[in-house]
Amino acid sequence: MTEYPTSIGTSDAESITLLGHDLASEMMGKVSFGELAFWLAALRRPSAAELSVFEAVLVALADHGFTPSAIAARLTLTGAPESLQGALAAGLLGGGSRYLGVTEDCGKFLAAALAAHEGPLPTDEADWDELAARAITAQKAAGRLVPGLGHPIHKHGDPRTPVMFRIATDAGLLGPHLQLFAAIGRVHPPILGRTLPLNGAGVCGAALADLGFPPDLLRGFALLARTAGLLGHLAEEMRSPVGESIYRQTDESVRYVPPEG
Amino acid sequence: MTEYPTSIGTSDAESITLLGHDLASEMMGKVSFGELAFWLAALRRPSAAELSVFEAVLVALADHGFTPSAIAARLTLTGAPESLQGALAAGLLGGGSRYLGVTEDCGKFLAAALAAHEGPLPTDEADWDELAARAITAQKAAGRLVPGLGHPIHKHGDPRTPVMFRIATDAGLLGPHLQLFAAIGRVHPPILGRTLPLNGAGVCGAALADLGFPPDLLRGFALLARTAGLLGHLAEEMRSPVGESIYRQTDESVRYVPPEG
Amino acid sequence: MTEYPTSIGTSDAESITLLGHDLASEMMGKVSFGELAFWLAALRRPSAAELSVFEAVLVALADHGFTPSAIAARLTLTGAPESLQGALAAGLLGGGSRYLGVTEDCGKFLAAALAAHEGPLPTDEADWDELAARAITAQKAAGRLVPGLGHPIHKHGDPRTPVMFRIATDAGLLGPHLQLFAAIGRVHPPILGRTLPLNGAGVCGAALADLGFPPDLLRGFALLARTAGLLGHLAEEMRSPVGESIYRQTDESVRYVPPEG
Amino acid sequence: MTEYPTSIGTSDAESITLLGHDLASEMMGKVSFGELAFWLAALRRPSAAELSVFEAVLVALADHGFTPSAIAARLTLTGAPESLQGALAAGLLGGGSRYLGVTEDCGKFLAAALAAHEGPLPTDEADWDELAARAITAQKAAGRLVPGLGHPIHKHGDPRTPVMFRIATDAGLLGPHLQLFAAIGRVHPPILGRTLPLNGAGVCGAALADLGFPPDLLRGFALLARTAGLLGHLAEEMRSPVGESIYRQTDESVRYVPPEG
Repeated sequence: MTEYPTSIGTSDAESITLLGHDLASEMMGKVSFGELAFWLAALRRPSAAELSVFEAVLVALADHGFTPSAIAARLTLTGAPESLQGALAAGLLGGGSRYLGVTEDCGKFLAAALAAHEGPLPTDEADWDELAARAITAQKAAGRLVPGLGHPIHKHGDPRTPVMFRIATDAGLLGPHLQLFAAIGRVHPPILGRTLPLNGAGVCGAALADLGFPPDLLRGFALLARTAGLLGHLAEEMRSPVGESIYRQTDESVRYVPPEG
Repeated sequence: MTEYPTSIGTSDAESITLLGHDLASEMMGKVSFGELAFWLAALRRPSAAELSVFEAVLVALADHGFTPSAIAARLTLTGAPESLQGALAAGLLGGGSRYLGVTEDCGKFLAAALAAHEGPLPTDEADWDELAARAITAQKAAGRLVPGLGHPIHKHGDPRTPVMFRIATDAGLLGPHLQLFAAIGRVHPPILGRTLPLNGAGVCGAALADLGFPPDLLRGFALLARTAGLLGHLAEEMRSPVGESIYRQTDESVRYVPPEG
Repeated sequence: MTEYPTSIGTSDAESITLLGHDLASEMMGKVSFGELAFWLAALRRPSAAELSVFEAVLVALADHGFTPSAIAARLTLTGAPESLQGALAAGLLGGGSRYLGVTEDCGKFLAAALAAHEGPLPTDEADWDELAARAITAQKAAGRLVPGLGHPIHKHGDPRTPVMFRIATDAGLLGPHLQLFAAIGRVHPPILGRTLPLNGAGVCGAALADLGFPPDLLRGFALLARTAGLLGHLAEEMRSPVGESIYRQTDESVRYVPPEG
Repeated sequence: MTEYPTSIGTSDAESITLLGHDLASEMMGKVSFGELAFWLAALRRPSAAELSVFEAVLVALADHGFTPSAIAARLTLTGAPESLQGALAAGLLGGGSRYLGVTEDCGKFLAAALAAHEGPLPTDEADWDELAARAITAQKAAGRLVPGLGHPIHKHGDPRTPVMFRIATDAGLLGPHLQLFAAIGRVHPPILGRTLPLNGAGVCGAALADLGFPPDLLRGFALLARTAGLLGHLAEEMRSPVGESIYRQTDESVRYVPPEG
């Protein structure tokens, strides 16, 4: 008989165990939701410092207004008001490579650059800058963009970035991913020929990577954060619906074009 | 030109505003993720007491082991490992009327019973018991179950229920929905002919309703909580996959039966 | 050991069996896709007449332009271009009670009216009209709309309706659901005080019910039909994307409103 | 005012136009569902020969028994029986790179090999074999597998493959992708050091590419085909549910393992 090992939870008639602790007596009322989310994903309880960085990341990524994802969620509720889970799922499905991907791509890029570095990691800014310059140069030579650099709206600086650096510094958690990301911000202009801001989704990816999460999982935290934002949009859509109106407005702007040939 | 009013957020080149506050300087590092989730849905910041109840609900509902929802999420990751958002969405889609519905159904049942009550709400236990008895009797007469009563596994008492009552009491938030739910627990045995436990999903629905959330939205908080649980399952599935094995095991147990007739 | 009985398909090293037939030698090239879809759902092969009605229903329901569902699918592709399955899924999730539900609701309403009728079914138009009048009167008395009556755009007649009746008549498949639906079209004006068209989604529900499909499954055929339509939208979105533009247009029309109170 | 050009469909009070034709009078009853699906995606009506290949592909890909995707759809229906669209969406979400990806990956691999070939395409088998050998050798040198070669179950030959070649040959549609795929089947053993079957999902990808569909869209047809299969599974799940039992069986096989460290 195949067995499926898990470290998450079990339950029997008398108790529910989560992460090796009794849910009712040891978790409820004693662990915050953010703390539980970290613990479930990492299988270890975060320190207070780690939790402060983690919660700041979730808060930073929770919402960006009427994104394609939020609009899709609202339109889905318009068509299927009986299924809140469907509207939420539709919203999350738009959280792919193009929008939420930056958090993950940036974490992966930084992790790969650190992994490719031989010898001990830098201990001063100059050495970080050298490592950053090598990574940017290699990325440019491969014809690829540097994930986390640039933002379509916040062209002169993403307001979340300095705050996240400060929170991580205050927490004593300015790890190698964040330090390399900061160095990228310092050294990229001459290499790329223009000055770009370090964006907020990217700095969140760096911060999550410094918390020890594997790169493949980073998108998941952006999705968790976004779930709260989408729930806000859907609650608002229930109170004062605009989905029908977005649909009408869009449909009225459609122009029929005969297929070519 | 149609406009879409929103109270959630906006952004321009210099700033991101969330709920009327500057995201970077007033939210990040100052508001927990659970607090932000409440605020986004309610459009008002919770008090510390409200937040304690709200976070306890999210913790209580985050995970129940290998549920249909968690298994579906893992199997979806097996088939589409490149799309974490798809696996998460698939898991949420199982959070419908049968599993996560109890939280919502219980909140709705209690809200309807309170709305149907004429005159001021009870102030003592005897009056609550009378109101509860009327609601249960009417539900029974209509041939319907009382949502929140009974649990397939925790037949003699759901361990989350007394803890949630205590947390709400400590927070000074034992409102009419929770009081009616408690009364249902006291008076149902003679009416229904058997003694059933007040289940944990139900007490969470009552607590959320007492926090002022509309019944149609309650399922959403169960889904938010479950997102953290699903992320835990998917992180585990990435580390030590069992999806392929669940698939093989299930497929081997399939027996072909010719269609009838 | 639990076994899972299935009549759909099995495979071993040498062969793939679908519905009791060898997929490669007996199905591929010999059964159309529409025919297979009927067969999979009904577990019996349709006659040529049944197939003509079934395919006409799928064609009728495949697309309705830039619906909320099609817009959501396009926006999801904008955010997650790497996951066509996610965009398709997001589109289907909008196929709920409000849009695709009419097909199902109408089928259920007709089936319930037929089930409630005592004695043999009518054999002439006058008796069908009487049965229809009773069903409409009861629905009106309960304060509910008659599903399948009325259309937001085709106010003076849905062009699909007469064609579907003709196709079913030509196929010799004008069964009790379609006959009752036709009678509803004849008798409702004096009862409801206004003349409404029989809509195309409703007549499709009646036709599917006459083919013997259970009411709970009817929405599924609308979803299958819509999958082809959504694939058309997504193919077009890949060729000449408008998702980004819909997003920008919508986002520019957002107006921030401070939360009340 | 931004306009959204579309060649799919439009409607007004009197008519519904699909692909430039009147839906009611020119499409319903005159175009099969498979034909409409081709037309919607390609924006041109298929010839009878093209349709025969296209329908054979859809039939070949419709179902593979209790796949992760079918199991996820059934489990989702168990949890949310009110939302057939959610169960269908959950099933489709498992149709990603690992399962349905072969169709797309194979089409892309063949298209890239053809695009890389300089000069006119081969006209005899020997030249196709040479082109195939170069493509396989390059893929092997890059440390990558050849998509469409090998099958976990049909180790000695996928029964769908020769049938698809025959159907395409009979239709006069044995185009360059299929010819290259056939050559890969002939020449790979000495290069790869073992003999692998050409699998059915791969030959379907080659056939779709020969029909002129762009590689990025190929997964979409596998998803459309699978929608019919999933609907069959969900119809069966409604008649004789096994989702609850799969859940119980899986849950009973879970073994708690404390997190390491």
